[in-house]
Amino acid sequence: MNDALIILAAGQGSRMNSELPKVLHQVAGAPLLVHAMESGAVLEPSRTVIVAGHGAEAVEAAARDHDPDVTVVRQEEQLGTAHAVDQARAALSDFDGDAYVLYGDTPFIRPETLSRMAEARAAGSAVVVLGFRAGDPGRYGRLVMNGDKLERIVEFKDATDEERRIDLCNSGVVCADAATLFELISEVGNDNGSGEYYLTDIVAVARKRGLGTTVVTCDETETMGVNTRADLAAAERAFQDRARAALQEDGVTLTAPETVHLSRDTHVGRDAVIEPNVVFGPGVTVESGATIRAFSHLEGCHVGAGAIVGPYARLRPGAELGNDVRIGNFVEVKNATFGEGAKANHLAYVGDSTVGDGANIGAGTITCNYDGVMKHHTHIGAGAFIGSNTALVAPVRVGDGAMTGSGSVVTTDVPDGALALGRAKQVNKPGLALRIMQNLRAIKARKSSSGE
Amino acid sequence: MNDALIILAAGQGSRMNSELPKVLHQVAGAPLLVHAMESGAVLEPSRTVIVAGHGAEAVEAAARDHDPDVTVVRQEEQLGTAHAVDQARAALSDFDGDAYVLYGDTPFIRPETLSRMAEARAAGSAVVVLGFRAGDPGRYGRLVMNGDKLERIVEFKDATDEERRIDLCNSGVVCADAATLFELISEVGNDNGSGEYYLTDIVAVARKRGLGTTVVTCDETETMGVNTRADLAAAERAFQDRARAALQEDGVTLTAPETVHLSRDTHVGRDAVIEPNVVFGPGVTVESGATIRAFSHLEGCHVGAGAIVGPYARLRPGAELGNDVRIGNFVEVKNATFGEGAKANHLAYVGDSTVGDGANIGAGTITCNYDGVMKHHTHIGAGAFIGSNTALVAPVRVGDGAMTGSGSVVTTDVPDGALALGRAKQVNKPGLALRIMQNLRAIKARKSSSGE
Amino acid sequence: MNDALIILAAGQGSRMNSELPKVLHQVAGAPLLVHAMESGAVLEPSRTVIVAGHGAEAVEAAARDHDPDVTVVRQEEQLGTAHAVDQARAALSDFDGDAYVLYGDTPFIRPETLSRMAEARAAGSAVVVLGFRAGDPGRYGRLVMNGDKLERIVEFKDATDEERRIDLCNSGVVCADAATLFELISEVGNDNGSGEYYLTDIVAVARKRGLGTTVVTCDETETMGVNTRADLAAAERAFQDRARAALQEDGVTLTAPETVHLSRDTHVGRDAVIEPNVVFGPGVTVESGATIRAFSHLEGCHVGAGAIVGPYARLRPGAELGNDVRIGNFVEVKNATFGEGAKANHLAYVGDSTVGDGANIGAGTITCNYDGVMKHHTHIGAGAFIGSNTALVAPVRVGDGAMTGSGSVVTTDVPDGALALGRAKQVNKPGLALRIMQNLRAIKARKSSSGE
Repeated sequence: MNDALIILAAGQGSRMNSELPKVLHQVAGAPLLVHAMESGAVLEPSRTVIVAGHGAEAVEAAARDHDPDVTVVRQEEQLGTAHAVDQARAALSDFDGDAYVLYGDTPFIRPETLSRMAEARAAGSAVVVLGFRAGDPGRYGRLVMNGDKLERIVEFKDATDEERRIDLCNSGVVCADAATLFELISEVGNDNGSGEYYLTDIVAVARKRGLGTTVVTCDETETMGVNTRADLAAAERAFQDRARAALQEDGVTLTAPETVHLSRDTHVGRDAVIEPNVVFGPGVTVESGATIRAFSHLEGCHVGAGAIVGPYARLRPGAELGNDVRIGNFVEVKNATFGEGAKANHLAYVGDSTVGDGANIGAGTITCNYDGVMKHHTHIGAGAFIGSNTALVAPVRVGDGAMTGSGSVVTTDVPDGALALGRAKQVNKPGLALRIMQNLRAIKARKSSSGE
Repeated sequence: MNDALIILAAGQGSRMNSELPKVLHQVAGAPLLVHAMESGAVLEPSRTVIVAGHGAEAVEAAARDHDPDVTVVRQEEQLGTAHAVDQARAALSDFDGDAYVLYGDTPFIRPETLSRMAEARAAGSAVVVLGFRAGDPGRYGRLVMNGDKLERIVEFKDATDEERRIDLCNSGVVCADAATLFELISEVGNDNGSGEYYLTDIVAVARKRGLGTTVVTCDETETMGVNTRADLAAAERAFQDRARAALQEDGVTLTAPETVHLSRDTHVGRDAVIEPNVVFGPGVTVESGATIRAFSHLEGCHVGAGAIVGPYARLRPGAELGNDVRIGNFVEVKNATFGEGAKANHLAYVGDSTVGDGANIGAGTITCNYDGVMKHHTHIGAGAFIGSNTALVAPVRVGDGAMTGSGSVVTTDVPDGALALGRAKQVNKPGLALRIMQNLRAIKARKSSSGE
Repeated sequence: MNDALIILAAGQGSRMNSELPKVLHQVAGAPLLVHAMESGAVLEPSRTVIVAGHGAEAVEAAARDHDPDVTVVRQEEQLGTAHAVDQARAALSDFDGDAYVLYGDTPFIRPETLSRMAEARAAGSAVVVLGFRAGDPGRYGRLVMNGDKLERIVEFKDATDEERRIDLCNSGVVCADAATLFELISEVGNDNGSGEYYLTDIVAVARKRGLGTTVVTCDETETMGVNTRADLAAAERAFQDRARAALQEDGVTLTAPETVHLSRDTHVGRDAVIEPNVVFGPGVTVESGATIRAFSHLEGCHVGAGAIVGPYARLRPGAELGNDVRIGNFVEVKNATFGEGAKANHLAYVGDSTVGDGANIGAGTITCNYDGVMKHHTHIGAGAFIGSNTALVAPVRVGDGAMTGSGSVVTTDVPDGALALGRAKQVNKPGLALRIMQNLRAIKARKSSSGE
């Protein structure tokens, strides 16, 4: 099959109360529009046309960022869904195949659902509409069936009492041969209360022409649209609940699933344990048997098998942890590779670094990787021991089996097996602490009495 | 209008199982009593009388802390609600106007509701009672109506079966002309099962006198009282759910609203994003387009437009962040002003400081602001670069465009454009790390074998 | 009474999708098996027999870790619950008393429930079965009663329509005289659809013999079993909800109870306050009036009365905080005792230490307690003042009332009242910062233009 996607993404979303176009608001770290594009990806479309309007430049940028090959067309005026689809006509004038109309603010249509629509098309229906059985049909448009055939779509406000008792509702998603779709749209009028051209009217036009029209149904949750920030949060929660359940099915323990926040691409291996209050940004892979402890935050990183991370660990993009690595509390790792069994357990910043197998990075260690203009690399050799509160001024290399004395500032390379010291000698001033405190208290008392 | 509040706050709250008087337990960072006072503030009362009993001194202190002009009277014995209100008689003997009876353990009466009670008074009813339609009326007192008139309030235990089917219930909140109120109370007796004087009995007394009595209704959630710690948590959650929804309406994205904890006075601008697990203490303002990342904790601070805070940022009182400031993980800021675009991205403590526009504070930087007795100021100039792991010993001034070397201790001022270094020279001892580790392992082995 | 426990713990739990035997998955920080053992502990059993199968070695180790006196027997083949119990026959051949059959994957049977089963035994019933009234009986086995007597247990699939209307269901927990139990089991056959020996069949056998059989009922929630990771999470949540409510009853304020994660042995005193997002690992005691602020993580520690901990405090095993101690943000304490009123408020690591009354530990302080092989002790005297960013290289002793200069590395003892300084003298290089930045920017520009 040769398929095209037409994704409607022109709405302002005024109820979002936002400068940002509605379809660019995010669920699970990705714009709603990208979720819609990803749903459609199952069809391996040869064309994707995004119909942009409000904030069209930003919408175009986001769409291209996800797929450089998309075509973005503009809907300058908002004259209804049929009018919106019609904006894709020129872009698809040379296209021969089926077109699927999706919505940039409806992120959860499952790929399987679109595949079933494709099957219905293959079975001979000219127009395939996606419907759903609504728990509470409310003011949705109703699908009036005649046996297997879709007779027409009736808007709630135009529906008879009997039609309103129908619980099969319209999702808005439609599939048809592209040429047919645009022909049908040409016959849609705007002679209705709101003066808009409705895509739903193509069904009646098709029936008039004697074309076969049918319905594929999906779960109501797939059709969840986003109109307000509360809807956005509900969509996020729906995504999260699904993603959490999927991890559990895969053999991952989530101690308190409702407190774990996942991304679309989070991968966690079997028998890994995720403690409460963990956030996974995009691009995280956790291997089997690893433990992510409470209050950890991971983005763009890899955690090896058996590694223990957190509590309060921050893994930023480029953190690559080998097996059995240990990253402890208040430790930030960025663009750094840790060899097997290496450790950084307490209050440390390790950035732009390679850390050898079994190396131990003491509490308070800081890789000074930035000179104000450029980032520099720190190498810590296998089995090296970085004493607590060491400042490693990059670029710098600490050799295999080398040590740094606690509190040292290390500015030049340390050979393998050597000890580096870079700290001042301690001097004790007997009794001076007592005298200083007496003085300070006297000064404070004076200031208080003079009203400072 | 000239209005007075009488707030009953004498109860021990024995089911709280606490040393603290019930009305001083907190919701959204403020005592329940303060919530009641704030509800009544819509009336711009010329007098506020708090009837205290258990823990009266602490109650008085908290009330005065919120409003120095309150009158606090004591109810030495707990003889019922009418008796409690009667304790305000002397304090209001010279007062001419309406009195509203509120409850210190009922934090959620909406200002609009009290305004509607005022309207009902203005329309001529001598006594106005606040009622609510209960989903499950249970053991609440029932309001027996006669058309628009409130006939009487009947306690559940005294109600007939027919009366028990009434779902209009008594909130306890009452409004009347103060002089009338005290006259009615004088006629209330305690000839009932518990031997208490009930405020509800004033309705029957008023009817007997031919006075007009009516009911204003509010939502049941407004009348939520607090009797146990579980009630307190439920009240907190009710507050939070409302506050979260209000922010969403205002155009703020809350990725996971149920994980964001707000205060009564949290202000967040449009198109700001609040990630999961953020706590707002009192006195926080966040400007438009700022992002508060996960696991951040903010109190008494201001976050400028476009600033990015967190994850794991702690902003304490007096933190004033300009536009586009960046505060990163494990960074604490207290009583410090950051100029536009300034950054402190990793593991740092910045207290009692001014940080100039575009300055960069390296990882591990500590402002040493406390000498054991007094706090001192640190000034960091515009465009300055504070090297990682710098200790800035206040009072100290780092000039515009100045730098400090990583790992330095800076005890004296650094001129504009100068570089300050305060660190020891590094010495490498070849092979010493290996010998040290051998020795340590030998010592450990000896200790183990000798059973130490 | 002389009682024995037989705990069935042989199942693989294939729906857990795990290498770990099902009964070793954890709720509230303890294996499911341990919860079952703890339930049975109310009977003060003289024998405990664990029937292990899948992962028997790991199961045995966990069981012994909790109670070294358990007997672990192996069920090599999984031929049904009666067969499983039968594996305990030899181990109990010399035992004279009652045996209780419990399940290693059913963690929530309340001790009181087992006590009521013991009473029913004492009242003369030969076989006592634990049942429950199911909200939705679904496919549970039904208990068919004849007055007070249990007539038989019927599996759902064998039940008549009338029997399926019974809502009294079988928990599987059984109690009988041990000798009787094994006699009854000997008569149980496997002539059924699955070819297994069912423990439930002992009831029919007992009735045939004219033995008294009865039912004790418990709450449905007690019988919650764990078959999937989702079940495990549900069990964790059930545990947490109960534990949170119990703390509230005890007079503890939980601002947002659903965000506080407790362990089986968490003790918190009256009028303590627990803010949102706090995790309690095993072995934590918090005294009255202490406050645990948001995002704190506590394990194996003691927090004195009036102490304030957090936000973002990490207390690890051996942290012993006296009254009115203050541990602040990004501070880790491990195996360290803090005397009354001592403080460590910002970004610090205090391990293997004693801290005297009223001592103040500055921001960024690190106890350098590990030399790569052994841990060493740090002593900080009463009233001592540790300047910010001090590295205390253990073993080391800072005397009473002593001070350390900010940024010092302290390697030798500091006498009482002395001031220790261990830092290099600061040098300012006029104009050098400007020249360095110019150079760096030039280098960067060259690299960019040459495509590096």
